[in-house]
Amino acid sequence: MAYQRKDLLGIEDLSAEEIQLILDTADSLKEISTRSIKKVPTLRGKTVVTLFYEPSTRTRMSFEIAAKRLSADTVNLTVAASSAVKGETLADTAHNLEAMQPDLLIIRHQASGAPHFLARRLRCGVVNAGDGLHEHPTQALLDLLTVREAKGRLSGLKVAIIGDIAHSRVARSNIRAFTKMGSEVTVAGPATMLPPYLATMGVKMVYSLEEAVRGADVIMMLRLQLERMGQWFFPTLREYSATFGLALRHLALAKEDVIIMHPGPINRGVEISPEVADGPYSVILEQVTNGVAVRMAVLLLHIGGGEKS
Amino acid sequence: MAYQRKDLLGIEDLSAEEIQLILDTADSLKEISTRSIKKVPTLRGKTVVTLFYEPSTRTRMSFEIAAKRLSADTVNLTVAASSAVKGETLADTAHNLEAMQPDLLIIRHQASGAPHFLARRLRCGVVNAGDGLHEHPTQALLDLLTVREAKGRLSGLKVAIIGDIAHSRVARSNIRAFTKMGSEVTVAGPATMLPPYLATMGVKMVYSLEEAVRGADVIMMLRLQLERMGQWFFPTLREYSATFGLALRHLALAKEDVIIMHPGPINRGVEISPEVADGPYSVILEQVTNGVAVRMAVLLLHIGGGEKS
Amino acid sequence: MAYQRKDLLGIEDLSAEEIQLILDTADSLKEISTRSIKKVPTLRGKTVVTLFYEPSTRTRMSFEIAAKRLSADTVNLTVAASSAVKGETLADTAHNLEAMQPDLLIIRHQASGAPHFLARRLRCGVVNAGDGLHEHPTQALLDLLTVREAKGRLSGLKVAIIGDIAHSRVARSNIRAFTKMGSEVTVAGPATMLPPYLATMGVKMVYSLEEAVRGADVIMMLRLQLERMGQWFFPTLREYSATFGLALRHLALAKEDVIIMHPGPINRGVEISPEVADGPYSVILEQVTNGVAVRMAVLLLHIGGGEKS
Repeated sequence: MAYQRKDLLGIEDLSAEEIQLILDTADSLKEISTRSIKKVPTLRGKTVVTLFYEPSTRTRMSFEIAAKRLSADTVNLTVAASSAVKGETLADTAHNLEAMQPDLLIIRHQASGAPHFLARRLRCGVVNAGDGLHEHPTQALLDLLTVREAKGRLSGLKVAIIGDIAHSRVARSNIRAFTKMGSEVTVAGPATMLPPYLATMGVKMVYSLEEAVRGADVIMMLRLQLERMGQWFFPTLREYSATFGLALRHLALAKEDVIIMHPGPINRGVEISPEVADGPYSVILEQVTNGVAVRMAVLLLHIGGGEKS
Repeated sequence: MAYQRKDLLGIEDLSAEEIQLILDTADSLKEISTRSIKKVPTLRGKTVVTLFYEPSTRTRMSFEIAAKRLSADTVNLTVAASSAVKGETLADTAHNLEAMQPDLLIIRHQASGAPHFLARRLRCGVVNAGDGLHEHPTQALLDLLTVREAKGRLSGLKVAIIGDIAHSRVARSNIRAFTKMGSEVTVAGPATMLPPYLATMGVKMVYSLEEAVRGADVIMMLRLQLERMGQWFFPTLREYSATFGLALRHLALAKEDVIIMHPGPINRGVEISPEVADGPYSVILEQVTNGVAVRMAVLLLHIGGGEKS
Repeated sequence: MAYQRKDLLGIEDLSAEEIQLILDTADSLKEISTRSIKKVPTLRGKTVVTLFYEPSTRTRMSFEIAAKRLSADTVNLTVAASSAVKGETLADTAHNLEAMQPDLLIIRHQASGAPHFLARRLRCGVVNAGDGLHEHPTQALLDLLTVREAKGRLSGLKVAIIGDIAHSRVARSNIRAFTKMGSEVTVAGPATMLPPYLATMGVKMVYSLEEAVRGADVIMMLRLQLERMGQWFFPTLREYSATFGLALRHLALAKEDVIIMHPGPINRGVEISPEVADGPYSVILEQVTNGVAVRMAVLLLHIGGGEKS
């Protein structure tokens, strides 16, 4: 099949075949980053603009490195929330960037739907690098790639996603991604962190970590957004950690070859114990490596004219 | 003619022939940004340093994209006003940058004359990207290019520039640029925003928007610097907007093929109504596109050794 | 000899032969920055990440320009102290960066030993760009190169280092560098700024500027960290300047062909008078130029596979 999308806005829009194509492309590009000369000329003369309304060094760097490894030029624009408020509208900013004739706009925005809003207005492609509480599609794609590498398949797996589901775009994109590829997803977290609409997403909802990880092939811990903690969602950090923090003893409940994932950055000793994060089951750093590969694939499929490196 | 300047400090210094040459060069380079591979090797191995003492994502990005499309390397240095105060002198900073052997220094500074001060001290070329209330020559050049494309000529046009003339380096550079190329410039704004020296610049000064746009080929609205507003210059934003904001009804007073310009970012509903900004007469986004082309031309003429791509 | 180091952490670790090799390599690379096309393809496809926990435009730019002149790709990550506090651990940040498969990590950190801590944990090379009060090895190397160029040798010279020795990683690296290469180092400063361990480093300690510069081949003034001044170390700036600021009259005490150095940025009229900083004996800007050359050499020797350009 040929990939024909102008924009990558969310996992929701992608077919299983499109996801497969992105993963296969990432797989074939991954080797480039292991070469002595980590660079191919495929996207020479292409301009990739990153427009970040939330600070994120990690995702921005991953896109930037992916672009450079394909020889694209990158220009970064980070907009502080404060200056955006008094400045021009999002649409005007985007139209202005587009007038400089970039090939692709990578956007992160605190408002859910901001990339979709722009995609409808711009002729150049738009890639969602995280929008509000909505989606973070390249994160889910790199997670899929990591699981596929470890397990050899994506269908028929039991995937447990644990933590603050309600406030996590990573969770939302991954629930869509894994169910779409034929895995069975169970989510767990404090009741205040499990949104009611989960029932409609085809996932199993449980209220204990132990129940969620029982028999799991994949355990994905979410980052606890400490800045959002407080009396709203959970009494204290210590109680959260005692109830929903992943420790070594939990792994015995899961499949013998379970893998542990986390989108990073991790809060050691909060949602995940150091022994687990650094242990042999952890694929957390492999996720980061695959992040570059998946973003190279997305760039290539969107602005590479279909050719492979 | 050959372009021989070491520095580009202001429109004031340029002859009509030099302006013509820059516009012609921009014209021929503009096509590069429409290619599939938007890059020529012309400035490979050249180092362009941007030194910005005021935040400006737009102008900096435009220069950066222009440099990359010509294969020059760019290094960005943004100096927060606060740290500049306690730090080294401007001359020392510039001498230090020069010691790293860049080919061209692009500077924006809140003090009028800062680029001139540096140009006298540095062997490497200096381009003024906006100095205080003084000049912003590449903005005026991109405006000229945009008008020339729309009208086929620059002489004999009626150009209206509207807004806070007194605090606008864009206005100052454009008044010089358009009068130099043979157009007739009329400025309008509240009396507190029209500086007395305008009389010596060969422009017509009027106090109403309607009078200024009557018969105009070009209407250029200035950005209202909201942070400078207050009781000093105008009672309220609403009154400013009612008196000097451009609305659809005003266009009937102008020539039938009038074009509407704005240096951006626009304050929708303040100095310009959305219907005008987004309407068919608006060339605001074309200005942005031409900004890249004009900056490519400036880079090429200053550090390209005279060769064209 | 072949250079075999994975990491460059401090002058302390380097042998005189390794230092010699770095200086010779810098010497041969320096010419590239004087060409019309200032770029060689030697490090094409290499990724250099700068990770700065302290703001430093100068050193970061020097590394960045050095990398670009060798065709390496650079990605910059500046971590504000505030966000580092609540964020992930230094080791996790570094492991994450490493997972993106850079070839070299350039780190500046306010904690002495941070680069060593990372070097033990990472497979990729680590270069110390300044750690706390400990070392700043590339600064000392560029100082050696500058002295060697001016004097034709490094052994048997009298080097005076003046100022706040106790709080200067530049001083510490330079004391090691010059004594290692056979020069005789004398330090001078207020008693509160001379650390007790100097006695073990093979340097002569004196309490007056005049005594230190008598017969000196090289006078190196340190930057007074004004933000650290106060009643702790010295009564007033004026007294510091009167006692330990270098003025023209002091030069008569030194060798006739003495050279004056300063790591920058300089506080004019505090630790050095303008007449001295801008005078014919000053090699301050040559130090900056050599900074790029030395960093090119370090990049080449660490990730260039041993080949010269």
